[in-house]
Amino acid sequence: MKIKVLRDILSANDEIAAGNKQMLDSYGVLAIDVMSSPGAGKTSLILRTIEKLKDMAKIAVIEGDIASSIDADKINKVGTPAIQINTGGACHLDANMLRNGLRNINLADIDLLFVENVGNLVCPAELQIGTQKRMMLLSVPEGDDKPSKYPLMFTQVEAIVVNKIDLLPYSDFDFDNFHRTVSGLNPSVRIFKASCKTGDGIEEWISWLKSELGK
Amino acid sequence: MKIKVLRDILSANDEIAAGNKQMLDSYGVLAIDVMSSPGAGKTSLILRTIEKLKDMAKIAVIEGDIASSIDADKINKVGTPAIQINTGGACHLDANMLRNGLRNINLADIDLLFVENVGNLVCPAELQIGTQKRMMLLSVPEGDDKPSKYPLMFTQVEAIVVNKIDLLPYSDFDFDNFHRTVSGLNPSVRIFKASCKTGDGIEEWISWLKSELGK
Repeated sequence: MKIKVLRDILSANDEIAAGNKQMLDSYGVLAIDVMSSPGAGKTSLILRTIEKLKDMAKIAVIEGDIASSIDADKINKVGTPAIQINTGGACHLDANMLRNGLRNINLADIDLLFVENVGNLVCPAELQIGTQKRMMLLSVPEGDDKPSKYPLMFTQVEAIVVNKIDLLPYSDFDFDNFHRTVSGLNPSVRIFKASCKTGDGIEEWISWLKSELGK
Repeated sequence: MKIKVLRDILSANDEIAAGNKQMLDSYGVLAIDVMSSPGAGKTSLILRTIEKLKDMAKIAVIEGDIASSIDADKINKVGTPAIQINTGGACHLDANMLRNGLRNINLADIDLLFVENVGNLVCPAELQIGTQKRMMLLSVPEGDDKPSKYPLMFTQVEAIVVNKIDLLPYSDFDFDNFHRTVSGLNPSVRIFKASCKTGDGIEEWISWLKSELGK
């Protein structure tokens, strides 16, 4: 019975996710589920991307956090509309939370929507919420062994930004080991190296995003 | 009905956790649930602690990971017994997993047991597994805003090690803001600043641990 209940919850989520995707498609909005550990730099990457793309694409952001509106405040401050969703304890966004968020955004008015998930390398990977694309960040200080320890996340994404490369001189992050493990899990994934702090490497990520946007 | 099932699962967990605690108490073993985001330095702190305490206390480690035995291998390499538990996807250890781990440890032979939980700032906080103490690490690169975003974890622990202070010169981590937020959530928590890489600050953590061990 426990399994049955879980299955019901999951299939209800997937149905709502399919509806979200259909709605986003109908407005021609590219939505991206942005996932990572806490503090890996999701909001910083979104802010860098806004800076680079704001004259080319209309962007909005949905911020998922257990508590606080720190991230939405940062996005609103640069003039980009941001909706804060507080999950009230839940370890990831679900399709219903995204649906509620979408009701507060004028989809006709945007091209690109970032959905920043709760900082967590486990639970967000398990659930599709209805975005067209999923990506993740891994930050250099977290270490190159994370794909071995949290494999599901690394199989679920189309792009990985390895952030905080400005800290490489103070770290033993081994890119060969990282690439080897990731390519075993997800051979077609795109990997970008960047520092959202210094701006290094951001251009390659932006190029990829532009091509996904058809720009 | 969904709520009822969840409640049954939680109360079964709590019963097993109470049994774990009773068993640990009966052998005079101090067990500590070690929690943090992925890559914050849980295994590094355990290794530093083994180095400092190995002539004074008999130590064992239970390593919780979704996949891989990377961490248990590191602990075994320094001659300390380590059991690897793979959660097979689950985002935290539960009391039953700890019970199974305890069956593989000679409790009569040890004083101190570290139970390294899955790297996750959300789910592990929600569940007592039956250790006498709970602690967490936050690493400097994750940022000082984490207590606002993941409040539950910060209320559940008796000690916090702020790790990777060697990266402070390259970070805007604001200890005043961190202390202010944490003391609002958990006024009695002990906060230690350390670098498991350089060894800086480890002595204060070790002193606290010794006093908890009655040494």
